[in-house]
Amino acid sequence: MNKFFIISLGLIISTAIYAQQALFGGQAIVSPEIHPDNTVTFRFVAPKAIKVQLTGDFLPKQKIQTSFGEMDAAGNADLTEKENGVWEFTTPSPLQPELYSYSFIVDGVKTSDPNNVYQIRDVATVTNIFIIADGRDGLYGVKDIPHGSVTRRWYDSPGLQAQRRITIYTPPGYESNNQTYPVLYLLHGSGGDEEAWIALGRTSQILDNLIAQGKAKPMIVVMPNGHTQNPAAPGESSHGMFKPAMGGGQREAVASMEDTFGDIIKFVESNYRVKKNKANRAIAGLSMGGMHSSRISSLYPNMFDYVGVFSAPPVVTTMGGNNQDPNAESEFMKKLEVQKKNGYKLYWIACGNTDFLYNGVIESMKKMDGIDFKYVYRESGGGHTWDNWRIYLSEYAPMLFK
Amino acid sequence: MNKFFIISLGLIISTAIYAQQALFGGQAIVSPEIHPDNTVTFRFVAPKAIKVQLTGDFLPKQKIQTSFGEMDAAGNADLTEKENGVWEFTTPSPLQPELYSYSFIVDGVKTSDPNNVYQIRDVATVTNIFIIADGRDGLYGVKDIPHGSVTRRWYDSPGLQAQRRITIYTPPGYESNNQTYPVLYLLHGSGGDEEAWIALGRTSQILDNLIAQGKAKPMIVVMPNGHTQNPAAPGESSHGMFKPAMGGGQREAVASMEDTFGDIIKFVESNYRVKKNKANRAIAGLSMGGMHSSRISSLYPNMFDYVGVFSAPPVVTTMGGNNQDPNAESEFMKKLEVQKKNGYKLYWIACGNTDFLYNGVIESMKKMDGIDFKYVYRESGGGHTWDNWRIYLSEYAPMLFK
Repeated sequence: MNKFFIISLGLIISTAIYAQQALFGGQAIVSPEIHPDNTVTFRFVAPKAIKVQLTGDFLPKQKIQTSFGEMDAAGNADLTEKENGVWEFTTPSPLQPELYSYSFIVDGVKTSDPNNVYQIRDVATVTNIFIIADGRDGLYGVKDIPHGSVTRRWYDSPGLQAQRRITIYTPPGYESNNQTYPVLYLLHGSGGDEEAWIALGRTSQILDNLIAQGKAKPMIVVMPNGHTQNPAAPGESSHGMFKPAMGGGQREAVASMEDTFGDIIKFVESNYRVKKNKANRAIAGLSMGGMHSSRISSLYPNMFDYVGVFSAPPVVTTMGGNNQDPNAESEFMKKLEVQKKNGYKLYWIACGNTDFLYNGVIESMKKMDGIDFKYVYRESGGGHTWDNWRIYLSEYAPMLFK
Repeated sequence: MNKFFIISLGLIISTAIYAQQALFGGQAIVSPEIHPDNTVTFRFVAPKAIKVQLTGDFLPKQKIQTSFGEMDAAGNADLTEKENGVWEFTTPSPLQPELYSYSFIVDGVKTSDPNNVYQIRDVATVTNIFIIADGRDGLYGVKDIPHGSVTRRWYDSPGLQAQRRITIYTPPGYESNNQTYPVLYLLHGSGGDEEAWIALGRTSQILDNLIAQGKAKPMIVVMPNGHTQNPAAPGESSHGMFKPAMGGGQREAVASMEDTFGDIIKFVESNYRVKKNKANRAIAGLSMGGMHSSRISSLYPNMFDYVGVFSAPPVVTTMGGNNQDPNAESEFMKKLEVQKKNGYKLYWIACGNTDFLYNGVIESMKKMDGIDFKYVYRESGGGHTWDNWRIYLSEYAPMLFK
């Protein structure tokens, strides 16, 4: 019985399997089609539609009004109806290397591309994705190089009185050698969970590629769930398949991420072969996770030599908001003084110049300047979006543990 | 800085983050809404639509014609337009405990439910899912019980001259004790890959629940990729984000799954704390994976005490198809004789009575009867579908390693 027999059988039974197994047959068209010159054609079958549009982060931005003022949002483009009810749009120019998101809008109804199974969830929104030229600096694609492992497992948090789900990246070779490794704790934002950095952030691809190129040290990356009221990402705990919300939903938490972060460090350092010292611990996060990173590193002021604050004001009080403890800022600045005295190798702040938190970040740095707290500031274009956070991770990881 | 401050900030910045971060804002409606009596309401916003339908595997089946004759496929139901362009359908009666799939059809265009982020991919089709009452026997939901770990990693296959991706479930406690464990090798069908049993099969939930209830022995479950022309699932290798196809696509394979399965056993037995004997090895698979299981267990005729063949004829030649080696059947029957002589504890064949491979399964068993090859046959209702394969795993796992 040889392989050709099997392939032949596979073809024969395809129709029948599709019929019984999948709910709906596939379509024969290709979408998106990435052309050799990196222009991209999108196709959608809708014979009865009056108008089919595309919305995506590669289209010219449109301005929208929010409570933080005017901001950029993804633009739209009209598809043209061709033969057999197939609508089509081709980008007028090649797209730059990047991971892009899009959806169709059919007579006003947003819908995913039924010909593209690659999707990412951001909070409660699922969008299709595609990657041009393996993404920024070629770091987002999967290459024929050694790959790390990605494990979803559960750890015990006595501080939260819960078993909690956590995602761990171990570098290539971890399972087959006896080396010890440095650790990056990588924290998500208010809309995320322990799946966010792996799915939206392309963490395992970025680390695999950086390590293979010799640009980053092999390291373990720990991605916990920063919403302490939730044991796990939506659908992954006994809370069931609830609709995801910003902030992780309105359940009551037993304690804060900051106050219970020691449980995570303890779990990692007793379950993995890691170097257990400050020089080999880094923490970074985006938005809420950036605020977590600044506060956790100040709460444990001699724990991390590397701190990364992406798209968030390190001095959280500079962001505004009601309900603030009036002493919060002075207490935090005192902690920063201790952190400064203890020393650290890198305090890296990154923000996009159209980010709605940009002013808070600038204000934070002024306050840090006031106590001569050293940091490195990286300003990018763009706003509070995953394309920036993938870039920041790609730039931050190579600076660690050197 | 306390938790209430954080929650408050979360609410304030939600709008802004949604605007910059996600491509499209969420909708305020709930769909699906599972009522206390297990009826379910589906909702879809489409103010301009003329007709909105639902298709799902919980609706009365419709008959369709295939090359294997008339078969059941998912039925349709019409939604009714309510206020503000919200269309709605409520199931006329409660749904039985199960994991269900569905999509909407808006003026003839299939679309996913934008209010439900829970989806599964089957070959190239993505559908929304929901679970009633934690599924069959309550085994598909996530409970507050100890959880195993799920790791995606890569193994070396000298026989395929490739690094290949593999999914491994280790039972609760594996990381914190020194016990050795039995191993179940669990193989997907022609449309699947190393993600299929975890995503569509709910393997980690089923095993966690069976183990917590004392119904299955703690075991390691190994889920390799059975398409030897592919190193990994679509999107997870250097082949990029190609459109998935039955049979894994038409690339040329270096060797067959059967002939190179030893690479997988060797990898598992040198990388995990496993009991390395026949009494502690099981193999099972669905459809193509069932055929793999019968042939691998006959190729390594003293390797497995437990063989599970789900929705596939164990004597593959009974299925028909062209291009067959005329000696294939007699060679296979000789191997079965050796397997019979060597002995085994359980050879479990399961099939649905409307499966398009049903006749081949019956024919196979006649041939096995002819050489007095013992097996246990489990006939279910239904066809070649994941609801059956989840049930078969739920019934097969408890019989292992006892």
